[in-house]
Amino acid sequence: MTEIKVLQDILSANDRIADRNRRLLDEKGVFAVNLMASPGAGKTSLLLETIDRLKGKLGIAVIEADIASSLDADRIGSEGITTIQINTGGDCHVDANMLNNALESMALEGIDLLILENVGNLVCPAEFKLGVDRSVMISSVPEGDDKPYKYPLMFSIANAVLINKTDLVPYVEFDFRNFSRGVGVVNPKAALIQISCKTGEGIDDWVSWLLGEMGK
Amino acid sequence: MTEIKVLQDILSANDRIADRNRRLLDEKGVFAVNLMASPGAGKTSLLLETIDRLKGKLGIAVIEADIASSLDADRIGSEGITTIQINTGGDCHVDANMLNNALESMALEGIDLLILENVGNLVCPAEFKLGVDRSVMISSVPEGDDKPYKYPLMFSIANAVLINKTDLVPYVEFDFRNFSRGVGVVNPKAALIQISCKTGEGIDDWVSWLLGEMGK
Repeated sequence: MTEIKVLQDILSANDRIADRNRRLLDEKGVFAVNLMASPGAGKTSLLLETIDRLKGKLGIAVIEADIASSLDADRIGSEGITTIQINTGGDCHVDANMLNNALESMALEGIDLLILENVGNLVCPAEFKLGVDRSVMISSVPEGDDKPYKYPLMFSIANAVLINKTDLVPYVEFDFRNFSRGVGVVNPKAALIQISCKTGEGIDDWVSWLLGEMGK
Repeated sequence: MTEIKVLQDILSANDRIADRNRRLLDEKGVFAVNLMASPGAGKTSLLLETIDRLKGKLGIAVIEADIASSLDADRIGSEGITTIQINTGGDCHVDANMLNNALESMALEGIDLLILENVGNLVCPAEFKLGVDRSVMISSVPEGDDKPYKYPLMFSIANAVLINKTDLVPYVEFDFRNFSRGVGVVNPKAALIQISCKTGEGIDDWVSWLLGEMGK
């Protein structure tokens, strides 16, 4: 049973650091969101749309996590937003310690909203508590309507599930009823919002939801 | 350095079991392919197209790995193909031991081609040696052309990179040159094949490649 013991130790150490992140964010009055999705589901595009609508109204910062490259941080940074890049060095997720290192290196004063773009992965990021306020996931239409059934943990921990790329519905098979039934089984309380970062559909609904959760 | 030591132990134990898989496959004359991709990139659709073209010509078996559900195994099983389901119980990848358990439970006599559909994940499955003959990955057009730059390990170990959903090119931004340049940087020897499981484009090229690798 050694392997299980090791895993438990790592996860409980992670949870202690997540609590530290929670306290730090509270102390600085920062509302933090962990944004998760498969590779290419539209995390960076959603960030750009969100920044576009909230810039000037809220202090926003972004943490970009990638296994390699700084392509996304470069895109966000060009919007004039405080952006920190985490390269996980091969790791398939952000853990509480990586987030803690990023938070410690940032000037959090004046930041109302901090969004962490996690590594593109529908599995591992869901396993690590980070100490954030909300977990949000994107599932995109071309990935198919069966994803809630096949990756239940991620769907079960998300406060909001965004269905992106609705503009592609005419060109692929996607049954919204099957998708939302799947989400309902594992997480009936999740907000379900249809969006298209390409056409702008639903982005206002998402931003309203986010502001509501922030108490704004 | 304890964590690193633990990881090394796990990986070296994995490699020993991968060698055992290799010997078992050789002994039974089975050519094994590890098929990897993001969630929803088209692994099961490719399997169905491949089976459609090779059924009756080769003995084919499939191992379906999912975190949860048997949706894919049900689809493949309905084609009359020997299908084994691995539920990884939350794990984000198939390791050599899971494959070994599956191989030990199968009748491998008369099987020429065994395809393992790995868990939908562009990160972790690339880290575990399995003892198979070829690693094949699918990257799909709606995921974007930057994936080789952001998930380099997976692209670096693939013998073939299939670009699926080319039928969606008119509706999304995708620069084939940027994509293939990225693959070229990390893995200049990889075969690069454009396919659409929806229209059938390129499926014959993929099957020809596969048969060539099998020496058929």
